[in-house]
Amino acid sequence: MNPERLDRLFGSIRQAGWHALALNPGSSLTYLTGLSFHLMERPVLGLFVPGQPVHLVLPELERAKAGSRDADLILYPYEETPGSPLAALQEAVGMAGLDGKRVGVEPLRLRFYETQLLQQAAPRLSLVAGDVVIETLRLRKDEAEVARMQRAVQVAERALEACLPAIRVGMTERELASELTVQLLRAGSDPELPFSPIVASGPNSALPHAVPSDRPLQNGDLLILDWGASFEGYVSDLTRTFAVGEVEPEFQRIHQLVLEANAAAVVRAAPGVTAGSVDDGARQVIEAADYGSYFIHRTGHGIGMEAHEPPYIRGDNSAPLEPGMAFTVEPGIYLPGRGGVRIEDNLVVTETGCTVLSSFDRDLRQVG
Amino acid sequence: MNPERLDRLFGSIRQAGWHALALNPGSSLTYLTGLSFHLMERPVLGLFVPGQPVHLVLPELERAKAGSRDADLILYPYEETPGSPLAALQEAVGMAGLDGKRVGVEPLRLRFYETQLLQQAAPRLSLVAGDVVIETLRLRKDEAEVARMQRAVQVAERALEACLPAIRVGMTERELASELTVQLLRAGSDPELPFSPIVASGPNSALPHAVPSDRPLQNGDLLILDWGASFEGYVSDLTRTFAVGEVEPEFQRIHQLVLEANAAAVVRAAPGVTAGSVDDGARQVIEAADYGSYFIHRTGHGIGMEAHEPPYIRGDNSAPLEPGMAFTVEPGIYLPGRGGVRIEDNLVVTETGCTVLSSFDRDLRQVG
Repeated sequence: MNPERLDRLFGSIRQAGWHALALNPGSSLTYLTGLSFHLMERPVLGLFVPGQPVHLVLPELERAKAGSRDADLILYPYEETPGSPLAALQEAVGMAGLDGKRVGVEPLRLRFYETQLLQQAAPRLSLVAGDVVIETLRLRKDEAEVARMQRAVQVAERALEACLPAIRVGMTERELASELTVQLLRAGSDPELPFSPIVASGPNSALPHAVPSDRPLQNGDLLILDWGASFEGYVSDLTRTFAVGEVEPEFQRIHQLVLEANAAAVVRAAPGVTAGSVDDGARQVIEAADYGSYFIHRTGHGIGMEAHEPPYIRGDNSAPLEPGMAFTVEPGIYLPGRGGVRIEDNLVVTETGCTVLSSFDRDLRQVG
Repeated sequence: MNPERLDRLFGSIRQAGWHALALNPGSSLTYLTGLSFHLMERPVLGLFVPGQPVHLVLPELERAKAGSRDADLILYPYEETPGSPLAALQEAVGMAGLDGKRVGVEPLRLRFYETQLLQQAAPRLSLVAGDVVIETLRLRKDEAEVARMQRAVQVAERALEACLPAIRVGMTERELASELTVQLLRAGSDPELPFSPIVASGPNSALPHAVPSDRPLQNGDLLILDWGASFEGYVSDLTRTFAVGEVEPEFQRIHQLVLEANAAAVVRAAPGVTAGSVDDGARQVIEAADYGSYFIHRTGHGIGMEAHEPPYIRGDNSAPLEPGMAFTVEPGIYLPGRGGVRIEDNLVVTETGCTVLSSFDRDLRQVG
């Protein structure tokens, strides 16, 4: 349990007019309790009621993980029989006094399964999307969190450096993705990577979310590497674009534009500036060069315990940035069927501006 | 699109009395469409209505992944603006004629977020837990699927073999987990592993779901390695237990018992036998030796595109096994605070019995 974070959560729950927040496994549960569970077919549910110990429903075989080390935690372990999770949840819901109350949930985490369990355990309970509380809970990173994010960036950058000499024409995207993953682990990433590296070459690099394929690298390709490491539960998420041998002049031109767009966004990042304005910074550069219709996604997303979290850096986000907010800046230009460029860095807003955590060479380096 | 699988799904949807099935990213969506999406903050929803093309709502930036290659697929791409996913879903829901109808969903996949979007798009729609359809859809593996699972087992076994010489007293669980991950990738696993390897030593091995820690391996430890590979989307999930140097006689005894329990479960696996009977096979061996209360989980779980899927091998599952069903057999004995043993294999039910896909030495090998 982290008392400061719990206090902050309880304040937000009261402010939202709810009775409680219900969380299943994920970053928020770990952030608040220090306990880490996998999301699987056996439900784990934490019930957070202001002024009460945390109620945690969990499989008996995970009980030892939670230990009995904390007076602020009540465990409701259940056995392997079918009715058992519901019975444990009913007990917890009773102790927490949830029936007939408004309970916030994490809309991107809570599953239909837990929704149904909660409604069976407390038929008059009303579940509400808890974005407003969840999205602010982990938004401002403290010093210890930023230090871990910095380490996650360093691990990722060391891994890429170690990987570059292995890149050869004829190597497949999949092989390169595997090599990059190996180097991430060797460089000291937590075993659970934030996401599988994206390696996208040639026409595939025009797909922002390409999955590594068996396509071999060819001379003249643009090559996008989008990768990240995890360090003590905090992640990095970076992208660099390379030239396999010589690439055509337009590819060099769009690389230069994306580089400028990246810098234009970064330079705007400061407290009080809106997220939308950071997005505009990148977009204006690309639009001014008439490539606006090829920049088909937002400029970035928040980052921390998860690779994608608030704040989202897009034009319509008028929320002002605050010190401690961390996010990616990753403009891109994608020419369908031909190739794409994306350059992604991670930064943290400071009292006066921002600190860019990543420093890996952004130029269009030749590989292969 | 896979017409045979779609036909089978449509039959099940009709039989269940639903109008449609709604799926978000995951194995079932990939199984049916051949398309692979990540579950993220941008929703992807496939609507499957018998007799109609598949309706797929997805972010514009994922559109190229789906291509225009299929007449059986209608795409509803949405832009990066906030109201845009709902508008796209409304259009899809309209075309699919969902309002006022019963629609099955995947309870362990669909999130509160998509639930709300669907209810906003079609307020009179009623969502029902689709277990009955989802759980049978991928239950019987065909030859091509089994071949991939066999490869996923081979990759995992090669990785462990490559990893064993590196194990040393003083090495931490985390370091060993990282080395095992590296070897999995080197051996040819898909970059996205089915799960992060579990490395649990000494007292930690008594926790079935331990997370690798900074504990160094010590002489006299039991050492559990629970790891798996992924091959073309199909996974393996294996466990072996090792002795770090010499271990005490009771540890040797429980290892021998778990080995016998594993064999007793495997030998029962055949068409027409219930999943519960396979569980009993393992449990009886352990209970007869008075360790029943230390075998604190079911004997196994189904495996295929996911590391955990039906059929679940536990005492109360009276469903008869059928050819093509694939699952783990993984009895264990856990002595709290001291150490544990688990031995896990993967098998597929055949017309006459079963094929065990894994063959890595099950004896209590000494390492370190």
